[in-house]
Amino acid sequence: MECELRDDVLTAGSEAVEELYDRGFYGRVKDGKLEMSLIEGAHLLSRGKIEIFSDRKALDFKAFFEIASERVKDFELGYIVFKDLRERGYYTKMSPIGFRIYPRGGHPGKTPAHVFVYVISERAHLPLQRMISELNKAENARKRLILAIVDEESDITFYELKKTIMSGGQAEPDVVGAGMPAAASLINDRTIVWEPEIADFLHQNYFFGKKLDELRLQLSLVESGYLLDKQWIRIKHKNAAEFNEYAEGVEPGYTLKYLVYSNLRDRGFVVKTGFKFGTHFRVYKQFKTDTHSEYLVHTIASDHVFALPELSRAVRIANTVHKRMVFGYPDASTGDDAGGVGYVEIGWIRL
Amino acid sequence: MECELRDDVLTAGSEAVEELYDRGFYGRVKDGKLEMSLIEGAHLLSRGKIEIFSDRKALDFKAFFEIASERVKDFELGYIVFKDLRERGYYTKMSPIGFRIYPRGGHPGKTPAHVFVYVISERAHLPLQRMISELNKAENARKRLILAIVDEESDITFYELKKTIMSGGQAEPDVVGAGMPAAASLINDRTIVWEPEIADFLHQNYFFGKKLDELRLQLSLVESGYLLDKQWIRIKHKNAAEFNEYAEGVEPGYTLKYLVYSNLRDRGFVVKTGFKFGTHFRVYKQFKTDTHSEYLVHTIASDHVFALPELSRAVRIANTVHKRMVFGYPDASTGDDAGGVGYVEIGWIRL
Repeated sequence: MECELRDDVLTAGSEAVEELYDRGFYGRVKDGKLEMSLIEGAHLLSRGKIEIFSDRKALDFKAFFEIASERVKDFELGYIVFKDLRERGYYTKMSPIGFRIYPRGGHPGKTPAHVFVYVISERAHLPLQRMISELNKAENARKRLILAIVDEESDITFYELKKTIMSGGQAEPDVVGAGMPAAASLINDRTIVWEPEIADFLHQNYFFGKKLDELRLQLSLVESGYLLDKQWIRIKHKNAAEFNEYAEGVEPGYTLKYLVYSNLRDRGFVVKTGFKFGTHFRVYKQFKTDTHSEYLVHTIASDHVFALPELSRAVRIANTVHKRMVFGYPDASTGDDAGGVGYVEIGWIRL
Repeated sequence: MECELRDDVLTAGSEAVEELYDRGFYGRVKDGKLEMSLIEGAHLLSRGKIEIFSDRKALDFKAFFEIASERVKDFELGYIVFKDLRERGYYTKMSPIGFRIYPRGGHPGKTPAHVFVYVISERAHLPLQRMISELNKAENARKRLILAIVDEESDITFYELKKTIMSGGQAEPDVVGAGMPAAASLINDRTIVWEPEIADFLHQNYFFGKKLDELRLQLSLVESGYLLDKQWIRIKHKNAAEFNEYAEGVEPGYTLKYLVYSNLRDRGFVVKTGFKFGTHFRVYKQFKTDTHSEYLVHTIASDHVFALPELSRAVRIANTVHKRMVFGYPDASTGDDAGGVGYVEIGWIRL
């Protein structure tokens, strides 16, 4: 089957429509002819299904690959992923952001595509806002969104991206108890609640803080800020606003972190540090002594730009400890109910 | 037992020497009296073993804790770790960098301390050079070096630091074969070796690159640079120096990464990307088809400053996949044999 290369399109005659389009779902039909992308062409060329001519000269795979990679941005990445998807049994069509694929056993004309695949090099950077706009497009088209990251050795890692509505099951904090607000001392980057009954109350009912010993409770900065806001504790010479300013000085980024912490607490989650997992928080839907946290949540600014190794680390850790990796960010577009925080879940998947 | 607080020292009379020093190994004896640190004092005070007076006024735990945390830098961190170590059955003495501890069952006068414990907050930053100088001190004193990181909720994570000599078992590359240097095409951030026999030779014997298909081999930038240096491949219009400059443009930090890559290859390791683990490399002592890599290696500059959550992520991942986490850095002080690269291993431990 002969194809002609012009710019970034391959064209073949009407006989190709039957063989490549009808049977293999390559390319698209225009004026009775078949037009294919250079990625599709490379795949067919490598399998000996077509010959490619440019100015009447046949191109071998090497010559075609070199030309194509000059004409099409990220051609080699697209080719690596396209080939992989096809060989796994997914019919794969070109789409503006990469590919759309059809469920195994399905194909164009029989089933709708169910997934958008966004192809990216591990060396590229991925802004959160770009992620969100792709998620919106996928949502409007009722498709899942999968990121295909090609690493430097051309291995592909697939992640599924989802907007997540976070909803926990911890009971709302009770009305203020006796002795509250309780005195707490601010000691550098933590506070200590000295009153034994209140220390117990906060720790046993809501899993705030960690016991310093049998009598006293240590609270982290975000916990202290939250309990100060709720007027369950008081700190000498520091109202909530002053504490916030102090905490931002001790821990740059505190304000952002606190926004997500308090949002998760308000949504009924028990939220503890995720330091051991390299994230800001580990998050429990409800706290009982033998439960494991279900989420790791990391806070990012709304203009955050992901480096892909960073993403890879976070998702890998979450996966190995059977938790879901969620990124929380300030999002003014969410309603009042959502408290101005958006959540995106990123999970490793096998395709 | 009455103790007197003056500045950052607690003093008790000769009767304390017998009860606290001889039996509990607290403090040090000076002129027949016992001198203790405020950390030791807080521990004894919380257990009701001593009373503390300042200007003849007794201090309760809260008052003493607040005063001590003003007088001693990172007092609260030290207290948290000291208490934890003591309660786990380790006799713990003050040392200039934190503590030194004695093996379980041992104590001062009976056994030498075997470990230096370096206490640090998760919010602090830890320069590589500081790590190395502490490692040198520990080495000179024939002790192990353990980092005790106190997170924002006062949980402690222990890491052991070690200088490591990396030594692999892969055979030295053969003499240059027929058809070498083989032509390779540079396509953005990878190269392709087109000659099927050489593609097979490189991949099957030394695990370079990844097969693009049955015939062709893709190489990463560091692999390409290494094979270019060895004159096993050639790239049109690019000698090794030109390639290096190009690669640094595509991947900032390439030169540093290549230094460690080539050092590990020269030391007999098979080195592949660690992208899926969020590190630069996964490293095999020797490559057989069913082996797992033993190390994750991440490259850092010699003036690198660790953020502790970054360290926590890396060590956590290595631990969950049963690999050893190693950081490689340029080190001119190593001899010529070492190729100017130093390695520090950081491993999570249970104390």
